Amino acid sequence: MPRTYLITPGPTPVPPEVAEAMARPLIHHRSPDFKVLLAETLERLRRAFLTDGDVLMFAGSGTSAMESAVTNVLCPGDQVLVASAGNFGERWRKILLAYGLEPRYHGQEWGERLDPAAIAAQADGCVAVYVTHSETSTGVVHDVRSIAEALRPTGAALVVDAVSSLGGVELQTAEWGIDVVVSGSQKALMTPPGLAFASVSERAWSLAERATLPRFSLDWKTARDAQAGGGTPFTPPITLVAGLNAALGMIEAEGVDAIWARNRDLARATRAGVRALGLELFSPDDDSSSMVTAVLMPDGIDGQRVYGLLRDRFGVVLAGGQGPLRGRIIRIGHMGYMNQFDIITALSALELALIELGYSPPSPGAGAARAVEAFAGVGAAGD
Amino acid sequence: MPRTYLITPGPTPVPPEVAEAMARPLIHHRSPDFKVLLAETLERLRRAFLTDGDVLMFAGSGTSAMESAVTNVLCPGDQVLVASAGNFGERWRKILLAYGLEPRYHGQEWGERLDPAAIAAQADGCVAVYVTHSETSTGVVHDVRSIAEALRPTGAALVVDAVSSLGGVELQTAEWGIDVVVSGSQKALMTPPGLAFASVSERAWSLAERATLPRFSLDWKTARDAQAGGGTPFTPPITLVAGLNAALGMIEAEGVDAIWARNRDLARATRAGVRALGLELFSPDDDSSSMVTAVLMPDGIDGQRVYGLLRDRFGVVLAGGQGPLRGRIIRIGHMGYMNQFDIITALSALELALIELGYSPPSPGAGAARAVEAFAGVGAAGD
Repeated sequence: MPRTYLITPGPTPVPPEVAEAMARPLIHHRSPDFKVLLAETLERLRRAFLTDGDVLMFAGSGTSAMESAVTNVLCPGDQVLVASAGNFGERWRKILLAYGLEPRYHGQEWGERLDPAAIAAQADGCVAVYVTHSETSTGVVHDVRSIAEALRPTGAALVVDAVSSLGGVELQTAEWGIDVVVSGSQKALMTPPGLAFASVSERAWSLAERATLPRFSLDWKTARDAQAGGGTPFTPPITLVAGLNAALGMIEAEGVDAIWARNRDLARATRAGVRALGLELFSPDDDSSSMVTAVLMPDGIDGQRVYGLLRDRFGVVLAGGQGPLRGRIIRIGHMGYMNQFDIITALSALELALIELGYSPPSPGAGAARAVEAFAGVGAAGD
Repeated sequence: MPRTYLITPGPTPVPPEVAEAMARPLIHHRSPDFKVLLAETLERLRRAFLTDGDVLMFAGSGTSAMESAVTNVLCPGDQVLVASAGNFGERWRKILLAYGLEPRYHGQEWGERLDPAAIAAQADGCVAVYVTHSETSTGVVHDVRSIAEALRPTGAALVVDAVSSLGGVELQTAEWGIDVVVSGSQKALMTPPGLAFASVSERAWSLAERATLPRFSLDWKTARDAQAGGGTPFTPPITLVAGLNAALGMIEAEGVDAIWARNRDLARATRAGVRALGLELFSPDDDSSSMVTAVLMPDGIDGQRVYGLLRDRFGVVLAGGQGPLRGRIIRIGHMGYMNQFDIITALSALELALIELGYSPPSPGAGAARAVEAFAGVGAAGD
């Protein structure tokens, strides 16, 4: 087996500090020790969400938190809008349909950036609008700040899936007036999967008061009341909470601004390297989207073969395409515990795999070289 | 801080082998490595559940799996019965009520063993009957085998909460004809909390086909289809799956029969020690219930003070009472990674704490002594 490099848009590598925190002997979830751990973790989570409001924690995947943002916000028959330009936008629609809602739908091509004005134009009379922040399937980070602004006159609440973006790219939950932000532990927050979160604004709490869709283990009020008492309503994933607290400590030590800048630099160098390999970008070729870079495969080369070769021969785990993009793109992650050498590794491995599949790069080694140049700060212009 | 001993009815101590498995570098959940890990874990889970049928895995607490056994089985308006004699029996009722069902209710006093004939007498026309196997709040292990037999003529499906019993005490899912068994990772399965399971019989699958209660992340068919393809529908708690696989390997190496016998011996020695301390048992004074021993506190001594003193002074974490039993009992767990020295420690600490609170045991040190005698196999008669 080759050494493994996880350079995916989640789950992301677990830092040793986080692994150590999770390997400590289990503490009981009703003990004073856990109460202290939980309080510190929730306080740090609020800082990562950039809100003074409630952030609730659940055992589950990011999808569990998304589901909670449907069942705790809506009543049967409510008017809602989904704005989607990728796989995770579609997930909102699927969840809403599973609960009997008939959402309005603003769909754009996969890979496009959501249009705030077009969304607002369809939101009149809606209780809530459901959107994605980082659309991991395409690499696009949607402009949820502008979407929130555009929606303000409509009175609709804004619910944002930030599973793969929170902590990795700017998201001002309170300042931008986002009512619900859902996220998960396994992306920019550098913790293994299994914990999910939802921030809840005052307006979202008002909606939760009237929401009659059924829910039990994901009920927000139950979680809030338990958290107010220093606990969780049901046995929490204790080791993951310990890991998350360590990860959030690392994030605070680095500073969220510094992390956003680091990811932007990683994405910028990735784009420069990809272009130097003679490849086309599928995700935006600018700083708007720094969580995932999606690379179009050359004609005649199946992205899934590239993905498999990278993984099996080189131990480099990137991500393939989803849905209509399957086989057409390869995705490189820039979130969590990653640095410049991960990007140089990803570009080098991608070049080696493509050469093996018959592709001739314009100048051998130029991908890695161009990335090094970008990291050295000498490649900002004219590339 | 004193050294900590977790001798609770869950979460239970994590064996070093499990901690090591969880500390390994994260593997991607769409990788061939994870596919192998998941397949082995699910196969071992089926053996632990003693069924050849489907066992589904979810990110969540045991309560999530319970919730799935409501939403995947029922339609609005279905007749169902809850049989309850403790805190976790009540949880079934709460979940059913949250989903708009109006369950029939067979309630017995907390601490009683559920009466199979009385349950069957109320089950006519019911789609499903919801019961608890190990009622952790009272220490009683209910006789779900007899309940299943009694229910057979009624045609109602039997759904069993085995969160705190599966792997620790005999539960023959297939042979006893139990339609749904739900469990969690953090009790007898020796893994940290965060994974939940549901076994689904053929009849339960038929119910799932017609069930119209809403669900998304806990949908059984979605989980089954993903597992059939070697994966999970949503990002799974990868580290916990790795830990669970290691734990299930240990369970297989010891043998489930041997583990059931070990827990029975631990419970037997605990009861002997408790009697030698001059205390009364709240849980049954026989081999029927070997997961948790509940001990009545002497008159005038508050169980919550005992619990706190044990924890803060001696580092020995037992469990207090829940609901109407709060302050009246102390509970000692016998599940998971525990052995005779844990029991001797628990009894010794309990005696020291009670003496500090003014209690005079009939013969100092007799609790530990009697337990040692029981483990030596010389104390079976006449105690």
